[in-house]
This record gives sequence, structure tokens and C-alpha cells, in this order.
Amino acid sequence: MINNIKVGIVGGAGYTGGELLRILIHHPLVDIVFVHSSSNAGNKVFEVHTDLLGDTDLVFSSHFNAPIDVLFMCVGHGDAKKFLEANPEFLNNNHLKIIDLSQDFRTETNAFVYGLPELKRDKIKAATRIANPGCFATAIQLSLLPLASKHLLKDEIHIAATTGSTGAGQSLAATSHFTWRNNNLSVYKAFEHQHLKEITQSIVSLEPNFNQSINFIPYRGAFARGIMASVYTKSDLSLQQAKALYQTYYASHPFTHISDKNIDLKQVVNTNKCILYVEKNGNNLLLLSIIDNLAKGASGQAVQNMNLIFGLEETTGLKLKPVGF
Amino acid sequence: MINNIKVGIVGGAGYTGGELLRILIHHPLVDIVFVHSSSNAGNKVFEVHTDLLGDTDLVFSSHFNAPIDVLFMCVGHGDAKKFLEANPEFLNNNHLKIIDLSQDFRTETNAFVYGLPELKRDKIKAATRIANPGCFATAIQLSLLPLASKHLLKDEIHIAATTGSTGAGQSLAATSHFTWRNNNLSVYKAFEHQHLKEITQSIVSLEPNFNQSINFIPYRGAFARGIMASVYTKSDLSLQQAKALYQTYYASHPFTHISDKNIDLKQVVNTNKCILYVEKNGNNLLLLSIIDNLAKGASGQAVQNMNLIFGLEETTGLKLKPVGF
Amino acid sequence: MINNIKVGIVGGAGYTGGELLRILIHHPLVDIVFVHSSSNAGNKVFEVHTDLLGDTDLVFSSHFNAPIDVLFMCVGHGDAKKFLEANPEFLNNNHLKIIDLSQDFRTETNAFVYGLPELKRDKIKAATRIANPGCFATAIQLSLLPLASKHLLKDEIHIAATTGSTGAGQSLAATSHFTWRNNNLSVYKAFEHQHLKEITQSIVSLEPNFNQSINFIPYRGAFARGIMASVYTKSDLSLQQAKALYQTYYASHPFTHISDKNIDLKQVVNTNKCILYVEKNGNNLLLLSIIDNLAKGASGQAVQNMNLIFGLEETTGLKLKPVGF
Amino acid sequence: MINNIKVGIVGGAGYTGGELLRILIHHPLVDIVFVHSSSNAGNKVFEVHTDLLGDTDLVFSSHFNAPIDVLFMCVGHGDAKKFLEANPEFLNNNHLKIIDLSQDFRTETNAFVYGLPELKRDKIKAATRIANPGCFATAIQLSLLPLASKHLLKDEIHIAATTGSTGAGQSLAATSHFTWRNNNLSVYKAFEHQHLKEITQSIVSLEPNFNQSINFIPYRGAFARGIMASVYTKSDLSLQQAKALYQTYYASHPFTHISDKNIDLKQVVNTNKCILYVEKNGNNLLLLSIIDNLAKGASGQAVQNMNLIFGLEETTGLKLKPVGF
Repeated sequence: MINNIKVGIVGGAGYTGGELLRILIHHPLVDIVFVHSSSNAGNKVFEVHTDLLGDTDLVFSSHFNAPIDVLFMCVGHGDAKKFLEANPEFLNNNHLKIIDLSQDFRTETNAFVYGLPELKRDKIKAATRIANPGCFATAIQLSLLPLASKHLLKDEIHIAATTGSTGAGQSLAATSHFTWRNNNLSVYKAFEHQHLKEITQSIVSLEPNFNQSINFIPYRGAFARGIMASVYTKSDLSLQQAKALYQTYYASHPFTHISDKNIDLKQVVNTNKCILYVEKNGNNLLLLSIIDNLAKGASGQAVQNMNLIFGLEETTGLKLKPVGF
Repeated sequence: MINNIKVGIVGGAGYTGGELLRILIHHPLVDIVFVHSSSNAGNKVFEVHTDLLGDTDLVFSSHFNAPIDVLFMCVGHGDAKKFLEANPEFLNNNHLKIIDLSQDFRTETNAFVYGLPELKRDKIKAATRIANPGCFATAIQLSLLPLASKHLLKDEIHIAATTGSTGAGQSLAATSHFTWRNNNLSVYKAFEHQHLKEITQSIVSLEPNFNQSINFIPYRGAFARGIMASVYTKSDLSLQQAKALYQTYYASHPFTHISDKNIDLKQVVNTNKCILYVEKNGNNLLLLSIIDNLAKGASGQAVQNMNLIFGLEETTGLKLKPVGF
Repeated sequence: MINNIKVGIVGGAGYTGGELLRILIHHPLVDIVFVHSSSNAGNKVFEVHTDLLGDTDLVFSSHFNAPIDVLFMCVGHGDAKKFLEANPEFLNNNHLKIIDLSQDFRTETNAFVYGLPELKRDKIKAATRIANPGCFATAIQLSLLPLASKHLLKDEIHIAATTGSTGAGQSLAATSHFTWRNNNLSVYKAFEHQHLKEITQSIVSLEPNFNQSINFIPYRGAFARGIMASVYTKSDLSLQQAKALYQTYYASHPFTHISDKNIDLKQVVNTNKCILYVEKNGNNLLLLSIIDNLAKGASGQAVQNMNLIFGLEETTGLKLKPVGF
Repeated sequence: MINNIKVGIVGGAGYTGGELLRILIHHPLVDIVFVHSSSNAGNKVFEVHTDLLGDTDLVFSSHFNAPIDVLFMCVGHGDAKKFLEANPEFLNNNHLKIIDLSQDFRTETNAFVYGLPELKRDKIKAATRIANPGCFATAIQLSLLPLASKHLLKDEIHIAATTGSTGAGQSLAATSHFTWRNNNLSVYKAFEHQHLKEITQSIVSLEPNFNQSINFIPYRGAFARGIMASVYTKSDLSLQQAKALYQTYYASHPFTHISDKNIDLKQVVNTNKCILYVEKNGNNLLLLSIIDNLAKGASGQAVQNMNLIFGLEETTGLKLKPVGF
């Protein structure tokens, strides 16, 4: 690649927009052409994402400067579809790559490729439109893909997963009020979380006969970043076989790792990594899966997809320093 | 006292209203006659203050049942004055005691007694209208009253104090969003916090010649309950003299204690206590002061004032189990 | 009851000992005769449990003052048995009631009654030795007892439950280091938590044919107090039937409540309550259960048992102000 | 520079060692030759710093591989001096650069240059031995250097500053126990913190006649990373003059920025930045200063010093993605 990738962002004032900016401003092969925000047009980016003071002088724009090579859509669920309908020049431009972080195009009854590199890396490389996966969906799928790839999901799947507050976005709400959420824990959308659709779609794409229940209890946790999922199902695999399966499946994937030791959420915060831990108890195979919901669960994975589309090393600009604590 | 005290509450759906209810429903000598809330009339109290499920079947009312012996006003700053103007029957009722938790009547140019028992216990006992002190104001005054009482505040006073998120009330705001406030720290209203007025008023009432600056840096902390203040000023007192002064001043006050060891905020959370710690370094006399902003800093102190007015033991209903952790 | 209950405590310097003291010092019908601590003999209680400064002048003792009516054992797991062997005068005293908070006597192959009032209130009233339930065990059993009582547990049970850091006790450990645990989440002892024994024992006592797996994933949460469990199993009951079953089962139990609305952990912190929430999705019956691990999960329940043994109102001294936030 | 810088680290298993590794493994011009740890020799680095799983295969060594260009010492206070005495080959090697993160050489009565680039960039560039500043000392000095440079510190200085738990290091202690520290706040070493020495030394180096008191109240905060300091002193400067002074002083320094708006701690977490905010109230000039204690307050600044010594761009490897939340 001779020239830098020219990037446009819509919805740049929200959480995924901010995280995308945090990553892209230090990406060595990217030029940010515009960051669109209807609510913040004219304001400096660091006035909204205040941790970027000193890192960038970008200003939110009210229009779409051209030309760009790739458009990231960081608008709310439902708004991505509306945006593209209202601005047909983007979908009409066959040279333009589009990476949508909303859930609007994740069900593959359209021209968008589901952007989970550990599942569809080759298709992503050839794609022009990407539907970036959901955060819970990423953590959970990465714990199940190796089994599905060998048609080994033969029983019900039981999942508890906890998300940080950034998963709920920037808008003020009772369940994101500090006084309420601090030191608290709660369950929502039990068995009915919207990410179950894309999870099932991916499993069935690998294991077409899969027709088991996926029982998913989502939790709201008292932390800002991260998702931990515990996932178990009955399996005939020994622990050794299971670990070998996971090691093999992810051997060529630079961001997903199998830990020999038990894991904890903060190992991945502020990184694009997913770390998995495999345990066997009786006939239960347990997978623990951790990601940063804003990075691998959203904007980091979006950049990973961009790297793949443009033929860059998959990890370019994504070797992020973990926060650790 | 033969009959229980008949209590009415206005503004019962907010934080101080909720805390007042948590205390009063177990107070052995109180009957709650009504809990008024314009926004929640008809709802059960435990539907708003959900931790009271199982403790009370009270329902928020839209009107003011009579008769009552005491009215607690837990409405916002500015609204207490408006409420009393719009409902003149309360101020016109000379038999009715009124305890206002807002700041509307704290400047004593009116008929309200400033309800800090450690300063004005005898006046409170004889009062019919009480202006309950502010939370920062309570923590800071309790660290200074003994010195002021002996006319020993002779130099500038330097204060840093940090409040929990409940101090900002129930309304949603950027600075009370969990994602923002978690693990964060920030300064606001430096040198200009509105509680400086009532602090100065109290000091001058004890030490009329006091004319020094009170430099107060208020912080927002990443916890829900509590205030810790560090307060220092130059003093000729030895450590021993200072401790003796504080021990003597508070000897008859059941909620304010001097600790021989260094203190930490959680020692007082969920109690009506104030704990003080005294240190001397060179000519600097340092006072650390901790309270629970909703209890001793608001609703607990309001009940303490009620106890005093009605001739009860000051601690009745206020021997609260600390949360400790 | 004419005379107060005379109480002795061994292991008073630990977390459950401290919590027991927080409750008992304000219990209206108790005299604390001694608080034994080998490590802290001679120290004031408030020097260890520093939030009790101003509440008590008790001193840890190195010996066992007599006479007492009830002995609370707050020592570590394994140490309760050793203590009673080394001090045979306690077990030999038939007039003495013993309430053990460790797990040493919870398997009922001995003279101890398992002290879960919602399961064995009548036996507890007649007992002289009580094995107080574990914290996870309490939260989980209360979510299952109504079903077991009607022999309706017919399928596997799936549990995820998260405990606060106080569940791990006072000793310093890597997993209780603030830097590590803050904003973190982790799984431990998956499928193998020691409380599964007492849970199974109680279920089988109600539903003798129960032989299903209980799959329990315990989590360490980033908060100090509380346990939330999500528990589901297949059931033919409608939501209405399930709620009616739970309402009926707990109608006479003053601390366990069914919420019509979804719940969150902080509703019960610093109380002796358990709040349950029932949901039905497809054939899955979901129970959410919340307790304070140190109160209903340990010392509060121990006092509840004491109240029952001595014929007091079950709630005496246990109407605790929730911390709420 | 043609060859990468060859780096050796001693004390690599502690917090500053881990943070140094997090930064250096992605530094484009560094080869890590050895990471010494007496306690962890033979273990993989990611077994201790578990967030580095997938980022590095480095193994802790028990010996010092040669040759290296620079030695980072991340051992405890007092141990750096002992280490160099026990291993004289390091100090005897005139070609070797040494950067010590302990406080052992910060008082400049030795051959070590105090490594605060905003104060001594030119000396650092020419140095072979660097004493890296303390974390509180960095935050506080950066708020005062511009005034001292113009001899404008003419009155007492009043400081409250709060540190995260990582400032206390990895060892387990009562004040770093999660149960204790969560939601808590406490003061320690009031007026006596050891960093006052290096702060005074730097101020006097710029303003030799400075002889005022620096009153410093250090706080322990309930977060893992970061320091916020509020610093005020009397000043004749207008707000505009003060801001201009700070803007000018830091114009050429890439990591220290002046914010026009009020700031909060998380703006700098996981970055090497210091952000300052200037306010004027009456004759009080207030400076707020925020840094990440492990980055700009320790390991990030150490790498900044390395960059300067070896003639690299000062920001090389230090454009870190902020965690933001």
C-alpha cells in the first residue's frame, strides 16, 4: 500500500466513535478525512473525547468530505440503515468500503459480510460492506466456534455473561447512574438478548444441524469496560482434546488466545484480544471468554476488519498497551 | 411521650426523602402519616426506594393528610420556600414543627434555627422551624467548632473534601454517569461552594472576630456515600491540647467522636456519626472529618433534630448498623 | 423473656464476628458477655472493627466468661470442630445453645440442626446446636426450596452467582488485592463449590427423589458485600403458578420477599433480607436471588436463629436500615 | 540510530516493571535482552503480568545477559542502591545507561540526573544515569515549574493529591485490601510525604530564594491508576497571565498540556500525559494536575527519558491509547 487509507466516520461523538478515534489517530497507515457528528459539528474532537486532548486537533464536521476509502458508521442501532438510505451516495459508490458497527446489517440477508475475522477472514478480505459483530456476540461466539466447526455442539448451551457500562452507550439512564450501578449487579433480557440471533446464525453456518437452545443470562456489571462470559455445554471431548481443538482453531488468529491458567476480565481491558480458558468437569465443558467490549467487541474489531479489507497486517495499529489494572 | 410523633414528608421520592424513610420506618416513636410526591403519587414507596421492599407498604400521596406533628421537607433547593408559600397552612400552623433539608432557610435571617445539634442543641430543642445543615457544611463545621468556640481560628483555613455521588441527588447528569464517574476524580466549585456561607455564619457566631479566608476545594469521588474532609490551619495548640479541646467539646454529643487512630471514610457509612481525627505537624493543626452525607449530612441529622425538638433521647432510632465495607 | 440473652462470641475479630457485633450491640434483648479473640485479646473491639467507634466499649478477651446462654462460633472452617474438641465444656453444657457459622457441622450427620429458618424453622426453635448455612448456599436454596417442596425440580439446575469480596474473609490474598479486584470479574471452583453439598442435602430433604445435576458457576465480583444468583431449570409451571408457589411458601417468612419487578443486588445490602424475582421464558423458569452475604448469608441469619431458639420475634434486632447505595 | 536499543530490566515482576514491559514490547526501536526477577526466574512474563498473554514470550531470567545499552531498575526503594553495590559491573560500565525508577538517587548529591524532562531535558539527553521522579512528585512539580521558573512562588503552597492503589505496589497490605479500599478514602503521611524532598529540590533549582512551606495532604483513592493534585498558592498573576505562562513553558513539551476546561482524572489514565488546568479565585491561583502514576509517574516517563538519552523522538513508543473509561 502506497497511500494511507482515507477514513470517514459518522457518529463520531458516541462511545464506539470515540474508541475508533483513539485507535485510528495512532494507526500508522490511516488518514482521518472527516469525523461527522450532527450534535457536535464544529466542536473539537477532544472537547467530547476529553482524553484525546494533546493527541489530535480534529474537528467534528457537519458534512462528508470526499474522497474517502472507507466509511465507519458508529451511529445507533436502526440509524445506520436510515443514514444509508438518506445518503445514497455511499452505497452507490462501489469503490467505497463500509464498516457498520450497528446491528442493522448483521443478519446476512443483505450484501454485508459479518465481520468476525475468526469466522470469516477470507470473506472479509474480499468484502466491501462489513457488519461488525456485537460485543456479547463476539465474546460468546469465540468461545463456541471451534466446537461448531467440528459439529460438536450437541446439547443445550448455558451462558452467563457480564458487560461493563460502556456497553449501554453514552446516554444517561437509571441503570447507568453511578449511584445505582456502583457495587451493583443486575440481570436484563434473560434468554432474549438480541445478540442471540447473530450467535445462532454463525453457529449454524458452521454446524448446519445445530438446533439446541442457547440459554443466555446477560448481566450488568459494576465496571466500565469489558465482557466476561462463562459458557458450558455437555461434551465428550476430554480436556486435552478440547484444548487442542481450540489451540488449533485459533493458531492463525493473532488476537484470540487460549490461557493455560484461569483468567480474569482485566487481562484484556484496553486491548483487541480475546482470551479463552477451557475447563472440563464431568461431562461439562466450560469455556470462559473475555474481551474489551469497546475494542474487540466494537471499534478494535472494526479496525481489524479494515486492516483485512485493505490487505494490511491484521494487527496494524492494534498492538495496544493493556491497562492491566 | 405518650403518643407517637405524627410525621409528614414532602419530596419523599428523592435521595434525602428515601433516606429519611429508611430511618423513620424503624424509628420506635414515629408514625408516618403521609409521604408526598408529586411525581410518584399513587406508587408504593418500595417501587421507588426498592431496598424498602418488605419493610413498608406506604404509598406516596398527592395530598397532605392531617394532622401531623412535624413536616420534613425533602424537596430541592429553592423549592422549599416555594412550597411553603404555595401552602401557607403549614407556616400558619404554630403547633406544627417544620424541618427543612434544603438550603433555603440556612442563612439565619428568618425564623428557622440552624439545625446543627453540636452547635445549637438548646435552641433546637425549643425550635419549631429547623433549617437542616448541608452535608459538606456538617463535616467541615464539626472539624472547626471547638476551635471557634475558644476563638482559636486565627489564620487561613485550608480544606479539601470529597463527596460521594449521592450528594448530587437523583437526577441524571454527565458527572453522575457510571462510565464517567467510576474510578474518576474531579474538582468543582473551587473556593466557591455554596456551603461556605453557612460554615462562615456558624464560625462567626462562636468567634465574632473571625475574618480569615476559608479555602475549600470540593472533590467528586468515585463512591456513592460519604464525605471526607481534610482541614488545616495554623495553631499554637499542642496536639495534646487540641485533642483535649475536641474531646471536651464533644463529650456530651452522642454522634461525634474523636479517634485516636487515623480514620477512613467507611467507618461512618450508613451511620449518623461524625468521626474526627486530630494531627499536629509543625504549626499546622490538621483535622480529618468523616460523615455519611445522606445520614449525618442530611436525613439522619434531620431525625436527630426531630428527636431533640420532641424531647426524645437524641439517638432514638439512629443507632444504625454501619455497613462497614 | 425476663432476662436478656447472655451471649459469648469466639472468633470475634473476623468478618462474621464483626458483623455479628454490629447487629448484637443494638439488639434490644442481648447482653454480650465476652468476645473472644486469640489474636486481639486485650484490644478494644472498635480498634479492629473501626466502624464501631462510639458504639461499644467492648474489649476482646482471651478467656470465656461464664455464664452465657448462647455461644456464637465465628472461627474459620475446620477451626470450629477443633475449638469444641479443645474446650469440651461447651458441648457438655446441655443448657448452652451453640450457633456455628463455619461449615464444620452443616452436613447433618451430627447433633447440629441446619439453621435455614425458611426450611427448618420449627426444628431450629427446638434446637440447641445450629449449623448456620453458607452464604452462596443461602441465596441458592431460597431460590429453590418452594419448587423442591412440591417435588417440582425435575431437570438440571443452572446457576451463576457472584459474591462480594467479604465472602473471602479478612486475610490478604492476590484475589482480594484492590488493584486486582477493582473493576474485575473472575470464576472460581466452577461446578465444584463446597456449598453444593448443603444445597443438595436441603433439596433432597424436601424432594427425596431429586437426582439432577446442579451446575454452579461461582464468580468473584468487584464489590464488597452481597450475592446475586441467577438460577434456572425447566419447569411446567406457568409464571403465575410459579409466583403463587413462591408467594405462598414464603408468606410466613419475614425476611424473604418476592419482587414483582426485576431486582438488583443493592436492594438487600446491609439487610437480613432475601429478595427473589421469578421469570418464565419458554420452558425455563428463572429465579434471581439476592442477599447480603454477611447478613442473611452469615451473621444476620445467625441472629435470626438465636431469636427463634429463644422464642423471640424472629425479626428482633434485625430490622436494619438498608444502605441503598 | 541504526540498531535497536538493547534493554535490560531488573525487578521486572513488580508493577513498574510490568508497566515498562507493556510499553517496551511495542516500542519500535527496542530489543528487550533480559528481564531479571529473583522471585520469578524461569517463569514466562505473561504468567506474572497476565494481560501480556499473546503479546510476548519473554521469560524472566536469573542472570544479566550482555550486552545491553540501557538498564532499567524497577526494584523497591533502597534496593536499587544495594543492587548496584552488589553488581559493580553496571556502574563501572561507562557505556551503559542506567535509569532507576526507585527513589534512591533522586536527591542530586550523586551522578544521577533527575529525570523530569519538563525540567531537565537537555541534561537528560547528555546523561548516563537517570533518577526517574516519583509519581506524586511528577504531578505536583508539573503544576509548579512554570511559576518557579519565573520566581513567582512567593507564598505557602497548599496541595491535596490522591493516588490510585497501584502507587502502593504489588505487596498485600491492609490498605490495599479490596474490602477495605473499595469506596473508601483516607489520608496518610500528611505534611510528611517523602516526595516533598524532590519537589523542593526542583523548585529551588529554578527559584533559589524559595523558602515557603509546601503543605501536602496525600490521599489514598478507590481506584487503581492515576493521581490528581489540586495545588494553590497566592499569586498576583491574572488568570490570563497564568495560562499564558503555562502555555509558553510547556509549548515544546509533548506530554504536558493545558486544558481550557476543567479536567477529570480519567483523561490521562493509560497515557504518558500530564494535563493541567488553571483557575484563579481572588488571589488564589489553583492548578489541577493529573497523570497516570504508572505511566508518566513511573515507567512511561522512564521510557521518555530513554528516548531522550538515545536521541529518539521523545514520544516514540509512548503514543498510547487512553483507556478513557
